[in-house]
Formats: sequence, structure tokens, C-alpha cells
Amino acid sequence: MILYLRAFGLNPKTETFSITNPMDAAQEAQRREAFRHLVLNALERRLFFIPSFKIYRGVAGLYDYGPPGCAVKANVLAFWRQHFVLEENMLEVDCPCVTPEAVLKASGHVDKFTDLMVKDEKTGACYRADHLLKDYCKEKLEKDPRLTEEKAAELRHVLAMLDDLSSEELGAKIKEYGITAPDTKNHLSDPYPFNLMFQTSIGPSGASTGYMRPETAQGIFVNFKDLYYYNGNKLPFAAAQIGQAFRNEISPRQGLLRVREFTLAEIEHFVDPDDKSHPKFAEVSKLEFLMFPREDQVSGRQARRIVIGEAVSQGIVNNQTLGYFIGRVYLFLTLLGIDNKRLRFRQHLANEMAHYAADCWDAEIECSYGWIECVGIADRSAYDLHAHTDKSGVELVAHEKYAEPREVEKLVITPVKKDLGLAFKGNQKMVVEALLAMEEKEAMELKATLEEKLEAEFRVCTLDKVVTIKKNMVSISKEIKKEHQRTFTPSVIEPSFGIGRIIYCLYEHSFYTRSSKDGDEQLNVFRFPPLVAPIKCTVFPLVQNQQYEEVARSIARSLTAVGISYKIDITGTSIGKRYARTDELGVPFAITVDSTTSVTVRERDSKQQIRVDVDKVASLMKEVTDGVSTWPDVLWKYPSHSS
Amino acid sequence: MILYLRAFGLNPKTETFSITNPMDAAQEAQRREAFRHLVLNALERRLFFIPSFKIYRGVAGLYDYGPPGCAVKANVLAFWRQHFVLEENMLEVDCPCVTPEAVLKASGHVDKFTDLMVKDEKTGACYRADHLLKDYCKEKLEKDPRLTEEKAAELRHVLAMLDDLSSEELGAKIKEYGITAPDTKNHLSDPYPFNLMFQTSIGPSGASTGYMRPETAQGIFVNFKDLYYYNGNKLPFAAAQIGQAFRNEISPRQGLLRVREFTLAEIEHFVDPDDKSHPKFAEVSKLEFLMFPREDQVSGRQARRIVIGEAVSQGIVNNQTLGYFIGRVYLFLTLLGIDNKRLRFRQHLANEMAHYAADCWDAEIECSYGWIECVGIADRSAYDLHAHTDKSGVELVAHEKYAEPREVEKLVITPVKKDLGLAFKGNQKMVVEALLAMEEKEAMELKATLEEKLEAEFRVCTLDKVVTIKKNMVSISKEIKKEHQRTFTPSVIEPSFGIGRIIYCLYEHSFYTRSSKDGDEQLNVFRFPPLVAPIKCTVFPLVQNQQYEEVARSIARSLTAVGISYKIDITGTSIGKRYARTDELGVPFAITVDSTTSVTVRERDSKQQIRVDVDKVASLMKEVTDGVSTWPDVLWKYPSHSS
Repeated sequence: MILYLRAFGLNPKTETFSITNPMDAAQEAQRREAFRHLVLNALERRLFFIPSFKIYRGVAGLYDYGPPGCAVKANVLAFWRQHFVLEENMLEVDCPCVTPEAVLKASGHVDKFTDLMVKDEKTGACYRADHLLKDYCKEKLEKDPRLTEEKAAELRHVLAMLDDLSSEELGAKIKEYGITAPDTKNHLSDPYPFNLMFQTSIGPSGASTGYMRPETAQGIFVNFKDLYYYNGNKLPFAAAQIGQAFRNEISPRQGLLRVREFTLAEIEHFVDPDDKSHPKFAEVSKLEFLMFPREDQVSGRQARRIVIGEAVSQGIVNNQTLGYFIGRVYLFLTLLGIDNKRLRFRQHLANEMAHYAADCWDAEIECSYGWIECVGIADRSAYDLHAHTDKSGVELVAHEKYAEPREVEKLVITPVKKDLGLAFKGNQKMVVEALLAMEEKEAMELKATLEEKLEAEFRVCTLDKVVTIKKNMVSISKEIKKEHQRTFTPSVIEPSFGIGRIIYCLYEHSFYTRSSKDGDEQLNVFRFPPLVAPIKCTVFPLVQNQQYEEVARSIARSLTAVGISYKIDITGTSIGKRYARTDELGVPFAITVDSTTSVTVRERDSKQQIRVDVDKVASLMKEVTDGVSTWPDVLWKYPSHSS
Repeated sequence: MILYLRAFGLNPKTETFSITNPMDAAQEAQRREAFRHLVLNALERRLFFIPSFKIYRGVAGLYDYGPPGCAVKANVLAFWRQHFVLEENMLEVDCPCVTPEAVLKASGHVDKFTDLMVKDEKTGACYRADHLLKDYCKEKLEKDPRLTEEKAAELRHVLAMLDDLSSEELGAKIKEYGITAPDTKNHLSDPYPFNLMFQTSIGPSGASTGYMRPETAQGIFVNFKDLYYYNGNKLPFAAAQIGQAFRNEISPRQGLLRVREFTLAEIEHFVDPDDKSHPKFAEVSKLEFLMFPREDQVSGRQARRIVIGEAVSQGIVNNQTLGYFIGRVYLFLTLLGIDNKRLRFRQHLANEMAHYAADCWDAEIECSYGWIECVGIADRSAYDLHAHTDKSGVELVAHEKYAEPREVEKLVITPVKKDLGLAFKGNQKMVVEALLAMEEKEAMELKATLEEKLEAEFRVCTLDKVVTIKKNMVSISKEIKKEHQRTFTPSVIEPSFGIGRIIYCLYEHSFYTRSSKDGDEQLNVFRFPPLVAPIKCTVFPLVQNQQYEEVARSIARSLTAVGISYKIDITGTSIGKRYARTDELGVPFAITVDSTTSVTVRERDSKQQIRVDVDKVASLMKEVTDGVSTWPDVLWKYPSHSS
């Protein structure tokens, strides 16, 4: 597949579209859809998510996290804080969502954060232009038996180029193929850019435009000066932010993956552009995982396992700091429960990357929708700080004090104003400015000419003419000067996490089904690690009886005291049914009260059971959910129990 | 003061305005302002907060949490989750900020979430009408020596009535006093309502109005049906949500207390309106704290210490569940470090409370701005669920299944359509409807009249006339029917926390100054409890030396491993200075590395020091920050150290 893509320049991006064998592809697509349907059904029935404002028929692209989803999210964010912010002593900030126009003008979002849209010429209904073209091509390729091989190749080429098409090219294709509005078959307008930010107005006058932020990063950049000071004017340091971001999609698709409001967790690691080494790189350098370098993509190879240390030393990854974060992201995702065989780090191709970026890698996770970009890890060079320095007039720079002053050779241009004044009168100022603006090479050439010929031709841009400069009018020399520090704009390395996407992929990777005891049903299980599980354990009295219920309530109190979330179920429902209900919530441990002195603890996936004293069970739960012990650790410490 | 207020009906609300002795009041106001200035100065310098988008000259009413502020906020929210969500097994949800109009139309926000605004007639500048009137009255009262006692009394009366003035009354006062625009002295428009929600548009068409939510509660109400099902169709249960809320203030004042975007944490506890008892009420019933019942306010008494159990049993607090939450809120705030002498629970007066509310109490915290409402605890009865049932058409109700079916007497009205048709022809339908719509009393009276006189006068509203009903036209009886369950709309008890306000008050209550060792300076300290402290401890090598630095780094690693945030400072700055810097961040413990085997641990407020083995210090820090031990506990376990 990849080979074919290369021929047409396809970026093997989020959506994999198998084209070598349409029959296999269709079957695979069906299998994926069936699996997704199963997962979504369990997620929605157990309120992991709820379409927002459902009783008002909802809003496309907005979802609530219901109780277990909300707990999973809180767990993922708490672990993110532990794994990144605390581990690296990052400076966490929390900025508002409402953002004034000036900030997003500087960042480029006001002008460039757009998708191309077409309108139904009669009803005014809006569509994403690329979606319509994509749907047309896919439909033709999948369902039109009369398609010639030549035409098929053309459509595949269009699909491959989709992200690179200009507004005009998209419009031309839509006309050429006679694509009309899907719902009405009416004609469509030409494509035009639609800004994806939610716009609002700050204050009562209506004069001050604001937007709901499309990312959290800008809040960090505008605070660079204060944060640098807070860090003792030292580099490198990282700032971080977790918060809501907004994107007013034209027509949201892909369910929980493409939404209009989402939680981002972003890190901006500021570093000296001349030294991107990382002191802790050795701690990750031996990790090996699936990487998909640019070269491999364009030469049609597959993603392959690479040791991150080697990727950096071979120059596949631009620098150590970028490599360090790639390694840390790998650890973060796999510790959450992402399957490392369905996780790859894909390097951006040259045409995907912003012109200023030094290098960029996406952590992509494979799920039923294909390979999904969940974390972007980019070396954005000095772009953002430069942009805000330009627009705000506040210098966002760092200084490096030299231990000893350094001697540097500096060009010194000294115009002799008296002589220049006599020669150029009213134009003197422009000539002086032009002389002072010379680069080293030009200046040294002028000096040589003046020394040889005593005068020289010199172009003054602001006068738009060439003047004659005489030797007495300017002195040019190189002098040795002492410098005490260097001033520079730091580079920024930005790992940016789409929390909702990570959680959705985690749901898919954690989901499996198994037969009920009687074999009559397939039961759903989420194999969340304790770290992520929305509820850590259940407490079930085996039968409805007051004694057992009291024991259950006292265990519940101990669990609250040690901060372990639990679900107590004192209904008389069969234990099997109670297990099944909570397996589907991904609860890792079940405590069944079947005596007043000791209880049975059952692990979700192995279904293994041990016996534990009533007064020890809360601290055991704390141990296995905090990661101090694993289930295999405790399995041999306690007597096993067979039901 | 309170006596005076009563005379003019002033609600002793957030702003206390002392009027008995203007001189004392002015001095007190100055003292408070000086204190606030000190606190704000420390907070801003140490980046607890940063005016948002500062390099672009900021936006009024928007603030960032800088690194220590962000950590405090995360700690407060984590404790909130532990203290409320986990303790009560609440169902936490997480809904979007972007909200469609239908939801906020139903909740009343589209029509009623407004402030009265006036415009400068020439420049269009906007002002809050009540602010201008308030400023005028205060200025006159404070600074006009020629003010007659009569006029002064009138102005005080206006101040007292400010919140109750209608648009017309406000406008009339502004005209009467000749109040003009503060900046230009231009004439002002009449007051008109300005909606305080940030408005936006969802999707590309512009046809679908949305707002940034003004509170998180609505996300819970619209999900009631699913949450009730998730809870096994059982009451009571509580749902909770933490998230951003927005309020497009006309002209934000009061710094960090009155902002345009803020974090709310809200609980909606759904309960049977016929049974508002709480099973855990006994756990809080003996708590005693400052309460300010409605009666005491209107009769001019002061807030007084009341045992919450007695407040409920005496009917001062409407019900046990409301009382339970008041008690839990008291514990929450005081455990965070709010001074219980500057915390009171003030009951809403009749004119402050929405007509549907059963009872409402605000947790008010006294700070330099006066008594500030930080938590509202309201019994909102069934209002919100009713409103959404009405507008969405989805029944948001609960059921109580009876153990045994109950026999209930039901009114049965059976119109005899044939006879009615003959008598009323085309009007028959209206007459039938009117008969069926009768209440029990009216129906039984009609029945009695018909039995006695064989006919009766009967008014049909929809026809706007009185008709004659004969005995044969309708049969009215009471029958015994069996009912299996009762269907009702639950009441909701809503504790709603303004997290930013709580944090600001916490800053003021935690702040104090003390002399430096040499007595030359006043040093700032925040006495945050370990639970709240942004950083739990510092690690300082006593002198710059490689051995000590290595010990410091190994301690730092152990702290990260047990999840304790720390700050390491390996500069050669004097220990005294390093202490002073971190006291101002509220760091409770300092670890000074002064040997390779044991270290000195110093507590922030007492400055007491103990010696602890290097390999035990991380677990000791964990113990004292998790609250397993207190400083006095550990003080006698370890040898003390004098520097």
C-alpha cells in the first residue's frame, strides 16, 4: 500500500485507505466498524460518554463525559501531571479560554486557522469541500463497477493529494466531477475559507473581538517573559497547561475523535537553539518502539522498531530534547494501557510541516478509524516567540551571561556627516541610513573600492537611485569589542496532547469480549490498568444479610479514607451478574464479602481470586492501585480462593 | 451598623459599608486597602496570578494562574473531589462550555441573566448603571462636607436599596442626581438590560446561536434521566461538575473576585421532596460555626455561633440535606485554611431568593473587600427539572415503587357525549373539556347540585359563557384505584463553589509578615496548610559542593517517586534568603542538606528544625503532606536541631 501511496505523493496520514485489494479492504472496514459499534455501544450505555444536550436533540461534535468517562479523564490528567509536570519540575499555568483578537492575530490563527467550505446555493447548507470530494472519490472507487483503471488511478491520485489542494483546485474538481449538495443535489458555491474559531465579543460595547482559544499554547508564549524570570532567568525550562480548546468544525465527523470542544495538555519546553541536548536523555535512550521516519514513508517502507537513542545519534530525530520527549510520550501512553504494537511515531513530511519547524513527530495510535494523531511533538524553533515579540513590541528573549567577557570582531561603519551633508543636503539622512544598514560583505567591498579608487557607486534604496560616495565620507573598519552576554530567542519544543483522542483509543485498546459462564452471551470487558480505571474496586456482600452489609459498609469507609474510589452493590443480584456489570466499567478488583472476618478479592481479567482479611483489604487495594504492588505480586502472598 | 441597615431594608450582602462613624470607616478602609496591596503585590510578583495577555496590555477581568497559583488550584480541586465526590460517591460529569440557546432559554439565562447598563451618549462607552449610582452616593457621603443630614439619609437609603431598583428607578435617580459619564461628563442613556453571556455561533451557517455557559449546573440537569438510570433509578443521589464558566461583565471591578471567566465546582443533589433527611447528618450535626439567619439580619442582630444540628431541628435551616451540606462546606473551607472566625453562613432574605427556592445559604468569607459570597447552598426545589421537562418535552422525573400497591381514591368524571352533543352541538368539545378539567372540589359541588336540582349552571371558560348542565349529561364519582408507584419531580439541593474566590480569600487569610533576622525588613509568608501549598518542600544544599548537590538530587528523585512537589535550589544564596523566598511561596517544609547522611528539616511558621536521615526524608515529607502525621507528631519523633 505504502508503495502505491508514494507514487502519488500520499501522506500516509490519519486515514489509511487500503487500495491494493478492494475486497480485503472492504472486509477489513466492515470488521473495524463492527468492533467500533460494539465499543461505542458499551461506552454510551455505561455513560462513559453522552451526546451533549441530548434532550434538546444534541449538538454535533459536542459530548459529555459521563461518570466513568469523567473519572478516566481525571485519572489520565493526574497521571499526566505526575509523569510530565512533577517529573520535570515544569511551570504549570492556567489561562482563560476567552482570548483577545491581537493574540490570535499574532499567532496566525485569525488568518490561517481555516477549512475550505462550500455552500448549497439554494438552502445555504454548509459542507467541507474536501469531505465532499473525498466521499465522491471513495464512493466511485468502492461501488462503481464500470470504473476504468485509468479513472480509478486518477481518483486515487486526488485522494492522495486532498490535503494539498488549493481552494481553486478543489473548486475545479468539484465542478469537473459534477459534485452537488448531498442532501438536496443543488449546485454548490465555490470553496472559500471558513475560520474555525468560535468568535465572540468581550465587554458590552461590541468593539472588542474575542475568540475561544483553539489551543492552550498561546497562553504560555505570551507569558514567556514572566516564566523565564520565575525560573531564575535560566534555560532550559518547560511550561505546561491543561485546558479546554475549541474548534468550530464545519461538519464534525468521526464521533469522539473530531469534536468542537476538547481538552488539550500542552508543554512548551524552551531551549537554547545552540544546545538542544537533554540532561536526562540517557533515561529514555534505550527505549525501542515503532517509528516511521520521513525517509521510510517516501521510499515506501513500513514503520519499524528503532531505538530512540540511535534515532537521535543517526540524525533521524533532529535533537536530544525532541528525542527525550518522544521517549517520555511513549512511556506515558503505554503506561496508560495503549498497545505498543498499535502505537507509532510518524515524522512529518516536508510538505506537512510549517516552514519554521525544525522537526515534527506525531504519536499515532491505530484504532478502528485508522492511525490517529493523538500527540504532536514539534520543534517549532523560535517562531512563536518571534511572532509575539513582533506584534506586542515586548522582547521575548533569553540571555546567556558569559563566564568571562568574550572578544568579538564587530563591523564599525562611521559616516562623516559633515561631508555627506555638503554632498547630499536634504538626502543626507537617507544616505546615512543606507550606509549603516550595510551587511558585512557589502561594507568590506565598499571599503576596498574606496581605498583603491577613492570613490564608489552606492545604491540608496529609499531614494531609489545610485549615488557616488567619496573616501572622506565614511570610515569602515573591523574592531574587537568585549561582549558580556548573548541575547537570543529560545527555540520551543512542543509536545501537545489531545486528551480526548488518547482516551478514545484507550477505550478501543482496552475493550474485549468473553463468553459468560453458561456460554449464552458475550460479555464486555475493559482491561483498564488500575491507574486509569474509573472505579478501583467493587464491594459486594455475597448475599443480602445485615452482617455482611455492615462489613461491606465498613470496608467502604476504609476505602474512602485511603482515597480509593469504589462501587458498593448491596442488591441481591447474582455475583456473576454483578461481576459482569463492573467488568464492563473496567473495575479491576472485586471484593466479595462472604464472611465477617475475611473476604474474596477477584481480579478482573484473570478472574483469579484470593482471600484477604477484612481489615487488610483497603490497604491492599491502595497498594495495587497505586502501583506499589502488581496482581502477580500479591497473588503469592495471599491464599487463593476457588469459588 | 446592622440596625441602621434594617431601617432602610439594606441586605447586609457582600459589601459592608460602614456608616455609623465615617472616620473609623475611612481608617478601616485604608487599613484593608494597604493589606490588600501587600498581598496582591506578593501574589503578582511570585506569579500566583498574572493579568492575562499582559504583553498586549491585558483584558479587564481575565487573569492567569501562574505556576504556584495553578498548583494551589489543582490542590483545592483535588481536595474538593476527595471531600465531596469520593466521600459521597457522587456522579461526576464533564460537559462542554459551548451551550446551545435552547438549554439557556429553558434555564432562564437568555432572558434574565442581565445587568442594567447605561451608555455615554456621545462615545458609546458602557457603564453598569448601579455602579455609577453607587459611586455617586459613596463619594457624596464620604467627601461632601455640605451634605445635610436629610440628604445623607436619602443617599444611604439609595445605597441600601440599590439591588432592588428597577430599570426605571435607576434611570430616574441618575437623571435626578445629574450623574454623567465618569470619563467624559457626557449625558448617559436610559438604563437597559445587557445579557452577560458571551454569545457565539455554533457551526458555519450562523443560524445556530450558542453561549459560553454561565454555570456548570445546566449540564447536569439536562442529563438527569441518564444519571438517574446510572444510579439504578434510586434517589437520593448527587452529580457534580468542575469546569469553566463565563460572565461577560460590563466593567469588571474587585480584581480577582469579579472576573469574566472562572472555575466553578457544582453539586446537584437530587432528593425526594417528601423526604429531605440525610443518612449521614449525624456526622456533621455537632459542628458549631457562625451563622446569620434571615431573622437575625432583619432584626439587626449579628451573626452568631449555632450548632448546625440545632439550626435544622429548630427549622432555621429548612432540612437535613441542606444542613448536611452546610456542615460539609464548613469542613471543606476550614480544612483548606480559611479562618473560621471570618467565615459565616448567611441565609438569603426573602427578596434575594428566587420564588421557587425553599431555602438558600451563602458561605461568606471576610476579606479586604468585605464579606464575599464564595459558596451558595440552595434548595432550588424542582424548578430546574421542571423547566427542562417543559421545554424539551422529555420527562425528568423519578419514581417510587410501592412495596405493595396502594389504594387511592380518584375522582372520575364521565361526560355523556351523546346528550352533550344534542344540547351543545358545535360547542360540545369545549364543554367536555371544561367538565374534565374540574378540580375535585368543584366537581363534587356540581355533583351535589345535579343530584338536588337535576341541573346546574356551569361556566365554560373557553366559550366565555355559563351553560346549563343536566344530570344526564355527566356522571361524577369517586373510585378506589390501585397504584403501584408514585411519579414525582425530584428537588435539587445545589452547593455551588466559586473556586477562584475561595482561593483569593485563602491567600488573604494565609498571608502574614514577620521581621527578618536582622530586623531590617518585613518578610512575607503564606501559611498554607500542606494540603494546599503549591510546593510541598524545598531541597537546599547548605553550601555549593558536589557531595551535597548529589545528596540533594537523590532526595529530589525520591520526592518525585512518592509524588511530592519540591523546589531544588543549588545556588549559593544564603540559607536565610532561600528560606525567605520560599516562605513567600507558602512552602511548608525546607530540607537543608548539611551532611551526606542526615539533613535538617525546617517548618515554615514555627521555624523549628529537626534532623532526619537522608533515606527517610522523602517518606517523612509524604507523611506530613498527606496528613498522616502533623508537624507536632513528628517533632518529638526526631531530634531537634538548632542552627
